[in-house]
Amino acid sequence: MAFLVQKYGGTSVGSVERIKQVARRVAEFWAQGHKLVIVVSAMSGETNRLISLAKEIQTNPNPRELDVVLATGEQVTIGLLAMALRELGIKAKSYTGSQVSITTDSAHTKARILKIDEDHIRADLTAGNVIIVAGFQGRDEAGDITTLGRGGSDTTAVALAAALKADECQIYTDVNGIYTTDPRVVPEARKLNTITFEEMLEMASLGSKVLQIRSVEFAGKYKVKLRVLSSFEEGEGTLITFEEDNKMEQPIISGIAFNRDESKITVVGVPDHPGIAYQILGPVADANIDVDMIIQNIGRDGTTDFSFTVNRNEYTRTMDILKEQVLPHIGARDVIGGEKIAKISVIGVGMRSYAGIASKMFRVLAEEGINIRMIATSEIKISVVVDEKYMELAVRVLHKAFDLDQANNIDVKSC
Amino acid sequence: MAFLVQKYGGTSVGSVERIKQVARRVAEFWAQGHKLVIVVSAMSGETNRLISLAKEIQTNPNPRELDVVLATGEQVTIGLLAMALRELGIKAKSYTGSQVSITTDSAHTKARILKIDEDHIRADLTAGNVIIVAGFQGRDEAGDITTLGRGGSDTTAVALAAALKADECQIYTDVNGIYTTDPRVVPEARKLNTITFEEMLEMASLGSKVLQIRSVEFAGKYKVKLRVLSSFEEGEGTLITFEEDNKMEQPIISGIAFNRDESKITVVGVPDHPGIAYQILGPVADANIDVDMIIQNIGRDGTTDFSFTVNRNEYTRTMDILKEQVLPHIGARDVIGGEKIAKISVIGVGMRSYAGIASKMFRVLAEEGINIRMIATSEIKISVVVDEKYMELAVRVLHKAFDLDQANNIDVKSC
Repeated sequence: MAFLVQKYGGTSVGSVERIKQVARRVAEFWAQGHKLVIVVSAMSGETNRLISLAKEIQTNPNPRELDVVLATGEQVTIGLLAMALRELGIKAKSYTGSQVSITTDSAHTKARILKIDEDHIRADLTAGNVIIVAGFQGRDEAGDITTLGRGGSDTTAVALAAALKADECQIYTDVNGIYTTDPRVVPEARKLNTITFEEMLEMASLGSKVLQIRSVEFAGKYKVKLRVLSSFEEGEGTLITFEEDNKMEQPIISGIAFNRDESKITVVGVPDHPGIAYQILGPVADANIDVDMIIQNIGRDGTTDFSFTVNRNEYTRTMDILKEQVLPHIGARDVIGGEKIAKISVIGVGMRSYAGIASKMFRVLAEEGINIRMIATSEIKISVVVDEKYMELAVRVLHKAFDLDQANNIDVKSC
Repeated sequence: MAFLVQKYGGTSVGSVERIKQVARRVAEFWAQGHKLVIVVSAMSGETNRLISLAKEIQTNPNPRELDVVLATGEQVTIGLLAMALRELGIKAKSYTGSQVSITTDSAHTKARILKIDEDHIRADLTAGNVIIVAGFQGRDEAGDITTLGRGGSDTTAVALAAALKADECQIYTDVNGIYTTDPRVVPEARKLNTITFEEMLEMASLGSKVLQIRSVEFAGKYKVKLRVLSSFEEGEGTLITFEEDNKMEQPIISGIAFNRDESKITVVGVPDHPGIAYQILGPVADANIDVDMIIQNIGRDGTTDFSFTVNRNEYTRTMDILKEQVLPHIGARDVIGGEKIAKISVIGVGMRSYAGIASKMFRVLAEEGINIRMIATSEIKISVVVDEKYMELAVRVLHKAFDLDQANNIDVKSC
């Protein structure tokens, strides 16, 4: 008998039939005597439908009002799932984010959770209810409805698990766990039984769409046991652990992550003096644009080239800022960008104690004639930027080179 | 410059284009310097879509959870309308029923408004906002979401107008006012410029679908000036008045209302002793079933027949109650029902000071060979129940007989 927070995503609740299926699954856990809080997303497609409606009215919908509209998606699902559970004879009670209440800051469409007042939920749990909470949403101090941004339902689930001190937070998705890489690119990709929190953080941030990164951060901060499972098939899924227990017996490299969501921008002929990075990136940061990789070449003749990547959605806005607010002041020659690039990362907590991972990675890519455009390294990952057309090839050869298709790939002799 | 509460129904906000049209109309009032609170319904079709979803899961959806689902319909509209106004450069702010807050009792799906905390709205009005409020919904003392039942948005508008002491509550609909009867049945039906509160109450309760009866009651109780207008065309609509000013120059009969929403039930061979009406109708009332017309014939041989009408939706339930809880105890012979009937009412504040209205009504119907099955009278209306097949004919001949197609029909000599 455990206290579980379970989250079911949009695909899992994408139709009346699937909502009933989720109810049956929840009923099984209920029959086993578990205490249950269920977090749900909007039915798949619903959030996009609502955004379209809003955009038909305002190209850039007012954020406060957009949140009012978007929050209805999850609100429909909680009501329907509560009905489905009652139909199975189980006492169930739904809560919107406001009702819980989940208090957030006022950053509409990307609010952050500040606190959770879980008293109502506790009382209803004690009274024998299954609690169903709308993911993705909350309210600010003024009582205005807020949403947490795409994938925010994962964060709701983890935050509730933390606030309620649940035994485990289970994220039910349309995949049965975290893989060494995307099986659509590498058919030999293997499901991991465990992954460390730090590895998961890198995997999530690098485009493995399974878990929203903020939820992983939250889980790390509050030491919430997090598990990714499939809504549609049985299995233990992947547990995200906080210890490196038995890591000696684990592979050095846990997985290969990749994404093509970024754009590379280079400011050419930048005067090479201290403070130039801040002069270039300050206005970008002020516009709330996240910069990922940054490279500054060694200068020649007093000038240098300064490259960085931003999300593709922010490319145009970033270019505008650079042209209007930066170039006129720093005396750089030009700003260029727009190449089709992809980022590929080799991730593994193990790698920090093994040399040669980076050089192996570079050698494997070189053997395939793949030119590396940017490099960034951290304690647990090495990322490279390559031309987008090489992405699948690069992922496949790296997956094989690091023996990720083998159950035990501790051997690094080849480095 | 006035303080107006305006309500736009589902058809008026039935599409993005129509929401924009409502915004343009609101913008005109705004430009004239009026202070505005706008109440909106769900986009037409949306409430039915949500009910269908719910019924796919539970044949009788749990009322608390049904309200959670249904309340999203209006929530989408308020957000979209606020965006549409902002797109026109007007400061607008949306509120759900919970946010206002509109506190109701806990009778889910048919809650009644208990109080309105209008402080937030007042502050936002003072700050120069157009306020947009979700109709049809509120929250109970425990914070659970409630809905007010079909047409509840009218009630929201009137209640807000009362709480805010607005100058006028304007109900925008798909008709341009209140008619002497349904123009689809009688093409000669005329729009009324004014109608008294009491007449409107009868018209609304008898199936004129323009205004929800509860909203008219509310308007009467709090003396809210209520006006029905068209969302789609210009015009003064119909003002619901509280005085009988100039009634001398007004027609005696204001209109003919009708509905086929009722079923007639007769308990046959009832022992004719005091208290029998209570014995029959007590259990029906306990089941929250509204009884409309009641007729008890004079007894013969110590027994009598007892007839009454209920809404057709309640027919089966009422018959069950009578057969299970009433018949076994009172020693009546049988209970019968199920005929297809319609109720037709002639309404007019004027009639109380003129004799002969009833006899004229009965004569006109007799001339057409229409048999009257039940009769009920009040100070301002006479209702008859006839076979449903005669309904349209009866309405047409009565409309003509009472000169409702004439602008001045004060003449009652023919009575």
